[in-house]
Amino acid sequence: MRTVEWDYENNHLQLIDQRLLPGEFRILRIEDSQQAGMAIRDMVVRGAPAIGAAAGFGMALAGMRSKANTVVELIAELNQAAEELKSARPTAVNLKWAVDRLIKTVHDSEGDDPERLRIDILRAAQQIADEDVAINMRMARHGADLIHDGDTIIHHCNTGALAAVDWGTALGVIRMAHQDGKKIHILVDETRPRLQGSRLTAWELEQYGIPYDIIPDNAAGYYLQTGAAQKVLFGADRVAANGDVANKIGTYKLALAAFDNSVPAYCVAPTSTIDRDTARGDMIPIEDRPQAEVLALTFEGRPAAPENASARNPAFDITPERLVTAIVTENGIAFPPYLTSLSGLFG
Amino acid sequence: MRTVEWDYENNHLQLIDQRLLPGEFRILRIEDSQQAGMAIRDMVVRGAPAIGAAAGFGMALAGMRSKANTVVELIAELNQAAEELKSARPTAVNLKWAVDRLIKTVHDSEGDDPERLRIDILRAAQQIADEDVAINMRMARHGADLIHDGDTIIHHCNTGALAAVDWGTALGVIRMAHQDGKKIHILVDETRPRLQGSRLTAWELEQYGIPYDIIPDNAAGYYLQTGAAQKVLFGADRVAANGDVANKIGTYKLALAAFDNSVPAYCVAPTSTIDRDTARGDMIPIEDRPQAEVLALTFEGRPAAPENASARNPAFDITPERLVTAIVTENGIAFPPYLTSLSGLFG
Repeated sequence: MRTVEWDYENNHLQLIDQRLLPGEFRILRIEDSQQAGMAIRDMVVRGAPAIGAAAGFGMALAGMRSKANTVVELIAELNQAAEELKSARPTAVNLKWAVDRLIKTVHDSEGDDPERLRIDILRAAQQIADEDVAINMRMARHGADLIHDGDTIIHHCNTGALAAVDWGTALGVIRMAHQDGKKIHILVDETRPRLQGSRLTAWELEQYGIPYDIIPDNAAGYYLQTGAAQKVLFGADRVAANGDVANKIGTYKLALAAFDNSVPAYCVAPTSTIDRDTARGDMIPIEDRPQAEVLALTFEGRPAAPENASARNPAFDITPERLVTAIVTENGIAFPPYLTSLSGLFG
Repeated sequence: MRTVEWDYENNHLQLIDQRLLPGEFRILRIEDSQQAGMAIRDMVVRGAPAIGAAAGFGMALAGMRSKANTVVELIAELNQAAEELKSARPTAVNLKWAVDRLIKTVHDSEGDDPERLRIDILRAAQQIADEDVAINMRMARHGADLIHDGDTIIHHCNTGALAAVDWGTALGVIRMAHQDGKKIHILVDETRPRLQGSRLTAWELEQYGIPYDIIPDNAAGYYLQTGAAQKVLFGADRVAANGDVANKIGTYKLALAAFDNSVPAYCVAPTSTIDRDTARGDMIPIEDRPQAEVLALTFEGRPAAPENASARNPAFDITPERLVTAIVTENGIAFPPYLTSLSGLFG
């Protein structure tokens, strides 16, 4: 199934509960928009496109569950649900994009039948999900041509089917290259603190039959400096107009190490991730996440930090465009200078 | 107390049991040289200088516990203890160095009084420990002058009292700057995979009353690019003649991020760590450690990697000298070009 999928029989949203992977595969039923917001906040679902699709269906749920008898009442409730959903994760631009797109659907709709509006919203949410899959497959196709037979690829975080509705971004490229018959090996950054690499990317690679080794994030520099890796791939949570990339914490250091060893570092992101209203990466707000995510580790069965230790946990960093070799989108591959090449992708 | 300390009242060795930190502080009594060997093998004590000092006292214990009535008998027993101790961690160079130094003491000793010889050995072991402390304090004194009031410092791995007899290297510098009355804040790289930062460095900083936050190693780049950190400090496992630094995995990426943001990155290491016979860092062999250290994590109580996942786990990387702002030793601070400045430290 897809990571984010509407159940038309029972009229609810289904999400793969990513908090339980890789140990357990479980589908979570989401019954209303509050639950959708919580699932986004609690990272049942994560990854910018998946969050966008989940929020879209969250709006559909807001419509479904509303008891409003008039379009005016329904729109008021939808506007409130939109604000709540958008506040679930501040950095993910797809979240805002998807919710705003549904609000536009609401305002563009004609007539005074709330039931009709409810159906329009669900249809628009489904369209966001379907478009995401189509876009990701086009992105994977473009990106796969950059991968060579025999490449060892360092991959950061999870950017696969689990981060999207299906296929994903950087991991979609890897999956497509593998389907093309290229022999590749993946060095999976475990991606502290939430370990999306060792938990989710490793799990996905096993599903696809792609050979991999998990590495501590600290080790990526070693494999780049010894010439063991030929490519670095990552996704993006937001791309600024100048090509600066906001992505999972640690991407910046990884890209620095790639650059220092003349290894190409490719960002794979749909055009919906490109925020043309944000001139530079340093204008992108960075989410601070709970310190418990850092401190909850145990080591050999014992606590890995002092009892009252404090921690800091920024979720993203900014990789300056000078370190990004190319940005792969569904509309083609952008090379520096990005200000013009990214604009070109929008036609 | 010191990490490695002789109890003159009860005539035994005391070690802080580092396997239990930070959850529990327990002093382990070591009553004979066999127990000393086991403590080294089981990593009750770790860090090259601490291992050397513990082995020295292990030799003293071999003398104490021996029932030999003649010097000849005693020397035979000491030789056997020396072999056993050296085999505890066959690669630790300080271990062999310390044991061999005590064997030399034995052979240099005159007279035929075994009691006198026992005292000479203990005195020589104590001297090894005291020299280590004296060297570290001189190093800390030099380094502390580089730290400014108000600095936020990113620190990698554990380089403190727990890695030595007392004081340590980079963390010794931090402790001295704090004692000097400078207000400093430490961002503690948790240091995957063995988490020496969150387990040991954070614990030490609490003992000294120095404020800190633990960060995922991935987050160091963020704090450097946002201007939140003014210094980067780390130790060394080996320094090549040209100034390349072999240190705990992840040091290279950390130094890259410091360099990219014009933040000074200081290596703190005694001259015994400088290997003038090794021309460059890429000639230093890198130890591969067990993959279990990477894969043993749990996340929110669940396995953090697929059941049959494989991992790679290099213990060190090489930080090229161009990224190292200065190397702090007990004999002074070396600046680039290191080929000449490091030589100068040996007089």
